[in-house]
Amino acid sequence: MNIVCIGSGNVATHLAIAFKAMGAEILQVWSQDSKNAEILAALTKAKPVMHWEDIDRSADLYIIAVKDDAIPAVALHLKGVKGILVHTSGATSISVLEGAGSGYGVLYPLQTFSKTKAVDLTNVPFCIEADRPGTLEKISAIAHLLSRQVAEVSSDQRKILHLAAVFACNFTNHLYQLSSLLLEQHHLKFDLLKPLITETAQKIQNAVPAEVQTGPAVRDDQETMKKHLQLLQGSPELQQIYELLSNSIKKTHL
Amino acid sequence: MNIVCIGSGNVATHLAIAFKAMGAEILQVWSQDSKNAEILAALTKAKPVMHWEDIDRSADLYIIAVKDDAIPAVALHLKGVKGILVHTSGATSISVLEGAGSGYGVLYPLQTFSKTKAVDLTNVPFCIEADRPGTLEKISAIAHLLSRQVAEVSSDQRKILHLAAVFACNFTNHLYQLSSLLLEQHHLKFDLLKPLITETAQKIQNAVPAEVQTGPAVRDDQETMKKHLQLLQGSPELQQIYELLSNSIKKTHL
Repeated sequence: MNIVCIGSGNVATHLAIAFKAMGAEILQVWSQDSKNAEILAALTKAKPVMHWEDIDRSADLYIIAVKDDAIPAVALHLKGVKGILVHTSGATSISVLEGAGSGYGVLYPLQTFSKTKAVDLTNVPFCIEADRPGTLEKISAIAHLLSRQVAEVSSDQRKILHLAAVFACNFTNHLYQLSSLLLEQHHLKFDLLKPLITETAQKIQNAVPAEVQTGPAVRDDQETMKKHLQLLQGSPELQQIYELLSNSIKKTHL
Repeated sequence: MNIVCIGSGNVATHLAIAFKAMGAEILQVWSQDSKNAEILAALTKAKPVMHWEDIDRSADLYIIAVKDDAIPAVALHLKGVKGILVHTSGATSISVLEGAGSGYGVLYPLQTFSKTKAVDLTNVPFCIEADRPGTLEKISAIAHLLSRQVAEVSSDQRKILHLAAVFACNFTNHLYQLSSLLLEQHHLKFDLLKPLITETAQKIQNAVPAEVQTGPAVRDDQETMKKHLQLLQGSPELQQIYELLSNSIKKTHL
């Protein structure tokens, strides 16, 4: 399989490296930024490309992993190519690729990627969608090269998944950050919280989150919550987050 | 070492079982609720106790693991006992035990416990504090029986740790719950998010949370955030949480 990779960000990097490791050939890596194109191209023995006229139009698969709002323009540039086009965005409808390639679809890995941290893709759910059954079969086979978990998910469902992931991942990581800032202000090490963070994430692997909720809000411990809000007196934003999330816990556990 | 365990909740259960496994003798388990006292007593080959006059007053260690607001009354009941008294509360000052036992202090395991899930205590940070150096030495030795991570932490610092743990654990688990409810409403399985949740918690074990923040807020992707708020139109509370946390991410990444 020959692949052209459009983009050189976190998702592009992890997918291109994983496909290369599975024996696919990465022909080209396109990026606006020549430096980034060169780095990922070097990692995958591909050619870095910066101009649309240089794109190889006979590849089997075009992976579009650019910012959501850049996808329509990329699709236009790739109009008429021989292979299948997929975008990798959670929040973008499949329809943005309409009429592109010999078939088109979505290959959305439901995971958070940083360039510097390797991720085992085998257990990452790949949400796929396609313009027609024939393309779906091909995209499914491609996804199964990387992961054991491949699920057909419509554009509407994928948007919900992406939104839910913002709550479960992006907002969660921000709470880690807020707690680390709190500790820093009081000369305490963030390391102290790490086993707790691991356990909190592990608990829900085999339990419903509502059933393992702990803390002052779920036991309606007014006294402790009052003390916590007092400790946050210098940080009105943290107070607001504390109150909003505590009230939300109380409401969902009535 | 002979231990009397006051309380039969999550913390009491995990500590009593762990001390028993390390060769300590659990003499008695006190609980208001005879059923709970009996269950934990059976697990640790101790005697269940419901009345204060039946408490063995010659034990080496009294572990107080009851609700925060019940600790002062328990301390009064234990006045004059032979051994050391410790409470296990994050939010309660050491001073609540003043004058109790032959020495007193705090043994606070910074972890989230559910009765039904075993936790390896070896890596759990135990935050300890004592009335005087002699007691501190003893409590430190006791904590080291269970964990490799023992840290001396003052009452004021422990309150901050407890507060930070509410953000990093209790609020985080609630975000898991909110995301699972969102998926449920759209007939999607929560299982799809589990690898993401695991990875999010793993990432910060070796990285600063701010540096691995991903998602629309940190890249100021207005378009996606607008779409997400539209998807949440039927849930004003989720909208509020979405906006507040997104704004907080933006502010801390300026």
